[in-house]
Amino acid sequence: MNAEAPILLTDIVNHHDSVSLADRYERIRSLSLSLVEPLSYEDCQIQSMPDASPIKWHLAHTTWFFEVFILKKYCKDYLSYAPRYDLLFNSHYHGVGPQYDRNLRGVLSRPTVNEILRYREYVDEQMVALLNASPYEVIEQLVLLGLSHEQRHQEAMLMDIKHAFFQNPLYPVYAMSSSASDARQVDMSWTTFEGGLLDIGSIEANALDDEKPRHPYYLRPYRLASRLSTNGEYLRFIQEGGYQLSEYWLSDGWQWLQESGTFAPLYWVKEGDQWFEFTLGGLQPLKLSQPVCHVSYYEAAAFAAWQGKRLPSEQEWEAAVKYRKGPANYFNPSSLQPRTCTSTEFAQVLGDVWEWTTSAYAAYPGFKPFGGDMSEYSAKFMSGKQVMRGGSCLTPPGFVRPTSRSARYPHQRWQMGGIRLAQDAVD
Amino acid sequence: MNAEAPILLTDIVNHHDSVSLADRYERIRSLSLSLVEPLSYEDCQIQSMPDASPIKWHLAHTTWFFEVFILKKYCKDYLSYAPRYDLLFNSHYHGVGPQYDRNLRGVLSRPTVNEILRYREYVDEQMVALLNASPYEVIEQLVLLGLSHEQRHQEAMLMDIKHAFFQNPLYPVYAMSSSASDARQVDMSWTTFEGGLLDIGSIEANALDDEKPRHPYYLRPYRLASRLSTNGEYLRFIQEGGYQLSEYWLSDGWQWLQESGTFAPLYWVKEGDQWFEFTLGGLQPLKLSQPVCHVSYYEAAAFAAWQGKRLPSEQEWEAAVKYRKGPANYFNPSSLQPRTCTSTEFAQVLGDVWEWTTSAYAAYPGFKPFGGDMSEYSAKFMSGKQVMRGGSCLTPPGFVRPTSRSARYPHQRWQMGGIRLAQDAVD
Amino acid sequence: MNAEAPILLTDIVNHHDSVSLADRYERIRSLSLSLVEPLSYEDCQIQSMPDASPIKWHLAHTTWFFEVFILKKYCKDYLSYAPRYDLLFNSHYHGVGPQYDRNLRGVLSRPTVNEILRYREYVDEQMVALLNASPYEVIEQLVLLGLSHEQRHQEAMLMDIKHAFFQNPLYPVYAMSSSASDARQVDMSWTTFEGGLLDIGSIEANALDDEKPRHPYYLRPYRLASRLSTNGEYLRFIQEGGYQLSEYWLSDGWQWLQESGTFAPLYWVKEGDQWFEFTLGGLQPLKLSQPVCHVSYYEAAAFAAWQGKRLPSEQEWEAAVKYRKGPANYFNPSSLQPRTCTSTEFAQVLGDVWEWTTSAYAAYPGFKPFGGDMSEYSAKFMSGKQVMRGGSCLTPPGFVRPTSRSARYPHQRWQMGGIRLAQDAVD
Amino acid sequence: MNAEAPILLTDIVNHHDSVSLADRYERIRSLSLSLVEPLSYEDCQIQSMPDASPIKWHLAHTTWFFEVFILKKYCKDYLSYAPRYDLLFNSHYHGVGPQYDRNLRGVLSRPTVNEILRYREYVDEQMVALLNASPYEVIEQLVLLGLSHEQRHQEAMLMDIKHAFFQNPLYPVYAMSSSASDARQVDMSWTTFEGGLLDIGSIEANALDDEKPRHPYYLRPYRLASRLSTNGEYLRFIQEGGYQLSEYWLSDGWQWLQESGTFAPLYWVKEGDQWFEFTLGGLQPLKLSQPVCHVSYYEAAAFAAWQGKRLPSEQEWEAAVKYRKGPANYFNPSSLQPRTCTSTEFAQVLGDVWEWTTSAYAAYPGFKPFGGDMSEYSAKFMSGKQVMRGGSCLTPPGFVRPTSRSARYPHQRWQMGGIRLAQDAVD
Repeated sequence: MNAEAPILLTDIVNHHDSVSLADRYERIRSLSLSLVEPLSYEDCQIQSMPDASPIKWHLAHTTWFFEVFILKKYCKDYLSYAPRYDLLFNSHYHGVGPQYDRNLRGVLSRPTVNEILRYREYVDEQMVALLNASPYEVIEQLVLLGLSHEQRHQEAMLMDIKHAFFQNPLYPVYAMSSSASDARQVDMSWTTFEGGLLDIGSIEANALDDEKPRHPYYLRPYRLASRLSTNGEYLRFIQEGGYQLSEYWLSDGWQWLQESGTFAPLYWVKEGDQWFEFTLGGLQPLKLSQPVCHVSYYEAAAFAAWQGKRLPSEQEWEAAVKYRKGPANYFNPSSLQPRTCTSTEFAQVLGDVWEWTTSAYAAYPGFKPFGGDMSEYSAKFMSGKQVMRGGSCLTPPGFVRPTSRSARYPHQRWQMGGIRLAQDAVD
Repeated sequence: MNAEAPILLTDIVNHHDSVSLADRYERIRSLSLSLVEPLSYEDCQIQSMPDASPIKWHLAHTTWFFEVFILKKYCKDYLSYAPRYDLLFNSHYHGVGPQYDRNLRGVLSRPTVNEILRYREYVDEQMVALLNASPYEVIEQLVLLGLSHEQRHQEAMLMDIKHAFFQNPLYPVYAMSSSASDARQVDMSWTTFEGGLLDIGSIEANALDDEKPRHPYYLRPYRLASRLSTNGEYLRFIQEGGYQLSEYWLSDGWQWLQESGTFAPLYWVKEGDQWFEFTLGGLQPLKLSQPVCHVSYYEAAAFAAWQGKRLPSEQEWEAAVKYRKGPANYFNPSSLQPRTCTSTEFAQVLGDVWEWTTSAYAAYPGFKPFGGDMSEYSAKFMSGKQVMRGGSCLTPPGFVRPTSRSARYPHQRWQMGGIRLAQDAVD
Repeated sequence: MNAEAPILLTDIVNHHDSVSLADRYERIRSLSLSLVEPLSYEDCQIQSMPDASPIKWHLAHTTWFFEVFILKKYCKDYLSYAPRYDLLFNSHYHGVGPQYDRNLRGVLSRPTVNEILRYREYVDEQMVALLNASPYEVIEQLVLLGLSHEQRHQEAMLMDIKHAFFQNPLYPVYAMSSSASDARQVDMSWTTFEGGLLDIGSIEANALDDEKPRHPYYLRPYRLASRLSTNGEYLRFIQEGGYQLSEYWLSDGWQWLQESGTFAPLYWVKEGDQWFEFTLGGLQPLKLSQPVCHVSYYEAAAFAAWQGKRLPSEQEWEAAVKYRKGPANYFNPSSLQPRTCTSTEFAQVLGDVWEWTTSAYAAYPGFKPFGGDMSEYSAKFMSGKQVMRGGSCLTPPGFVRPTSRSARYPHQRWQMGGIRLAQDAVD
Repeated sequence: MNAEAPILLTDIVNHHDSVSLADRYERIRSLSLSLVEPLSYEDCQIQSMPDASPIKWHLAHTTWFFEVFILKKYCKDYLSYAPRYDLLFNSHYHGVGPQYDRNLRGVLSRPTVNEILRYREYVDEQMVALLNASPYEVIEQLVLLGLSHEQRHQEAMLMDIKHAFFQNPLYPVYAMSSSASDARQVDMSWTTFEGGLLDIGSIEANALDDEKPRHPYYLRPYRLASRLSTNGEYLRFIQEGGYQLSEYWLSDGWQWLQESGTFAPLYWVKEGDQWFEFTLGGLQPLKLSQPVCHVSYYEAAAFAAWQGKRLPSEQEWEAAVKYRKGPANYFNPSSLQPRTCTSTEFAQVLGDVWEWTTSAYAAYPGFKPFGGDMSEYSAKFMSGKQVMRGGSCLTPPGFVRPTSRSARYPHQRWQMGGIRLAQDAVD
């Protein structure tokens, strides 16, 4: 693609609260463009499975979000860029109109990437003008939600292109990263938490609706693993027959296993006797000390059962993380893989990999969905999914809080889902 | 089938704690035989969908349960009736051997019904001898579990034959019941519950593993509808376009709706302008005052949202019911439909219909699965399902407690699933 | 089932043209009842795949054929036995009304087998009265067609129960047959046919519409194998990797192979190193000298290609067989498997196994479908199928002529389909 | 795409036999490039269904054909351009190696369009050098086959992009064509053919293997419609309920109709009361006088039956066309739709639309497949397909002969398949 002057990602990610909303808008929006720099037009077109979307669709949809929910409502005399885009780039908002079949997004060769980039420019100009020209209190929450939404899609773009490239026997490289050495992993220890009647959920103004309201929740004493489970530990599970031992698997998981023919995490490739992992930097030897990722909930739960342990509930996870300080490993263009843990403390909680929990995604007691158009933002997805916590190394900084909840179907693996073990502190 | 002297169901269902375990065994086992009295050999053979099983398979599988888990282990010199039955009648216990494909159970014409009845006689003789001959403390829990298991299958037999008969354009009648008149329904009122930190779960010795341990759970104040939602109320939902209004539906539910073409509860039949309901007594005009049943979780949740309400959590339901006394409408051969509510009190909680809750089926904090062979009884089913509470008019008396949890996939409708509305008591 | 006095099959099958139409009706109809003698009610209920039907459905459908196409039209004041049966037992005659979903026939437990037997009695009484009371010329062709139709279903009953029993790990036995020894097979030789412009098709009054009109067809000189290919020859194809060598397979066949996971003829079972074949007499060691059967067109064509040969066209087959005399091996209750060939002449052409041809099932030039209700008898099935010729050892005597055409989809295997090799006589 | 100097299509298509093979190679190859001129990179990437392929894949695969079957074998010291392309661009030639899943071709974003264009340049240079440098007799047949193969894919490129664009609600335009007016259609008349024992098939050196050998075939007297059936005639079939009248449909066709929900030819769009047709020139009002096209074999056969007629056999078609002269309407960049017939003679036989025949695609008597690598060119596709004859307005001139046979599955519609009626000349 026609390269523009590259934006320094460090500029984007180290944002300060002192920046204006318009600046924040531009910085976050520009990261989306940076993410497509390494890609060809053709790369931006493809959709490798229904769960994924073409990169160009992400670019257009996130733009449509600002257009339809903000510009059309709050920008006087706003002229729609292309009314026919509404059908194409509405993801699932029945309230504002119909949607094109999501399974077929990859077939829409028009508008082209360049046309979508012009669409972004048009909307961005209008948005910045709106944010600069007027007191924006009335739309501040919506803009912040739109930016959070953009960040969610930034992670999805990386997930989706990784999945698409993996289908290609040429194993294309998205970005060469300074290949981390396969450091020696530290031993896992257990951190004990007292439990009791604790507050779960957020009171922040900018929190999503599904993080609210803050409410009391009773927890028994419990222990969490000090670090994430590693590729090496998971490989032992494979080698000792874990995928053939039904007693460790959920019934649904066992059926999924038989139907899908799964025998290892997504992106693991065995050539001869050696294991490799497909990454955004191409196919690489499996690094045993790195956190295992791209496992389904079924695999995570079976691995935990095989270890004689379990996964944490989302409340156990949140209570453990909420008031801790510590380094986070979020999106950083120089390294797009989770890092080997080098600490013996309770670690690796923010970033690296999303951590599966035993909690089904459901409304908190007293839950009130966003109103208006945004009523479809979270509430209608509250069935059939498990909560994941903590963000990953593909998550843009600033997107995830300790109270943030991500929800995935138990069989999904193209997100960076990993494992932290848990156990009861008393029997 | 060759009718034996009919067993008086009143004898069976009014069991007293004073009866011996052997007597209890015989009474509960004989109910299974009573249930097949109205059926032909052919009726006992058919399997109308993978979720259902042939009636004769239920008769054999519940027998196999006693044979494999009790007789083979605790009866000295026990001679297996037919070793090849192990493959055929093992449902899902990987620990004791392989299983025949459950989707194809309906194709196993052999053993015949009569052969299976002889199998039952053989096992029953041995079981009664075992229970009479010796101190049975060591096996008491297992026998009680086997009887609870038999009762679960007795309800399933009625569910399954109802589903099978519904596929037949001749609409066969299982049992003529004194047709309840379509009584005038009482108004629904709201009962308020205080909430607070309450004990959830059971401490009874005979409780299933998934009801334990009893544990503290914090509830905000809430209100429950005084009675179940009715066919009449649900019909209004249909007539006002509820199945076309995506805003009330969970995303998964909306997709299920499009794919399945559902437009009314299972067993509702529209002929011309009139609605009928298929029942175990044949096709009957829809009785508007009776509780709606055979709805999926998706339909229950959409109906509640359309009412501006929600469904209860399983903890809200249990806390409301646990210490109440009241009439129950469990299995009664003279009436196999839920009854119209005539009370203005908080009512219809035990029996009538299983009540959908917002709670996903998951382990309670501190959960310990049954050990040994029974480790596969509950634990492995803890994903993808919603909890239902309270039992139905097809549930044998003595099977369900206020702490009992039934779990179904959100799309399942052949169980008698109904709706009790809930709301927060404070905003 | 309640055994009536067994009918001697030799009485049925050795019918003479001198018998009256009423006698012929009764003999052929009674064979259907003889065929179900060894079966239980449950056996008669099951449907093991959509291509197959329950035995009791065959009994009812063939009866319905006489009722709807003859009695209702030609019997004055005929009183329909049960009007609701029309929906259930109409196979595919859109012209006379709707049909119940053929995939779900196995779920119709009512009417029961006994009810269907009463239905047969009722219709048979009326039919015999009609045939005895009056000059029947007007209906003679229809009655003969109905009897031919009954015979077609008699073969299907044996095919279907064989398939159903094969799904049962108990491997039930339909009929013990005097187990033929595995005779030494004679060498295959080649018989040459001159070809030229020959007449193909039938001029018989009773021929089906698809056998007509007789028409000229030009054949180049060709050779046919003197006998059918054997299990032993086919086993060598398997052992030398035939199922892994794509070059011998049709493209559709190769895809079918990958999707179905096929690695041997239907009913072949490998236990350890030994091959068995499931038969109507139960599981038996594979007899290498018997004709291979239960192969798909794809397998037959691949085997022929691997031999460097091809299959015959239906015209080549018919021209070779039309004017020959020779023994036939049709249905004979004492032996329900194809026989080992002991002749070195051109042999095994009538009976034993249906022989796959390279000819797609299509209308002959000048084809006129039966008129009226019978327009749906053959014509609408003329796409997607291959012609098979010659009948099998499950075909009732008197059903198949040298001009008879059977049509099956290329993947179908539950009919007794076998292989006769062919080649050009000149290059 | 970066436009190069446009090639005048008239230069390409009016080729003369006097041109050298190298010139012919360059002209035909350059047409492929001309065809992609109107397309974006994204357009070239997409695959709208498994039957179709991405445009860029066509460009690469036709190139790979020359590389693997000619350059690698006949060009001394040939250096493979990119060995990994073999896996990606092998369509179905098992003999030369494995193939990438054809359903997923649209996911291969790499190599990009530009990379594939460089691959074409590389191979073309080598090919031209080979053709110029040496006596090429030894490879002439292979080169001509490769060019015929390229032309087949040129038609497929137009079919595939049309199908892909039709999925896009923006209805992109491939090429504006001088919109033919909806001329008044001439009446259809019937042309009688004598039949007799005629020669079918080709003796030309360059004919494909499936056109050979020439062989005698006996035809009864028959009549063919003087022109193709029109949109207007087909519209009447729709309006008079043709899609609801099972008696006109093949059984497989009727099932296809129910499952696919088809109610009109592919590309017909009804908006309000008006019919439109999607074309390579975009969405246009349906022109009633133009030949109907994009119908399946099932639709063609049902339409013919509804007319009281039938479709022709391929032998009837070939015998009628073989020795006639007349205008042809093959690919012409100025008009990409079939033309309205203005002649009352026997017309529209070459070009316009491929004509469905009743003949299944099968080997001619005495058929010998191409040898070596090319044994997979035709023979393995000889099951399940119907023959189409005559070429279409998307077929490059010079590709189709009167003896040429195209084969499609009966349900396929994205090729330009139309209808010529036939009937017997005598009853």
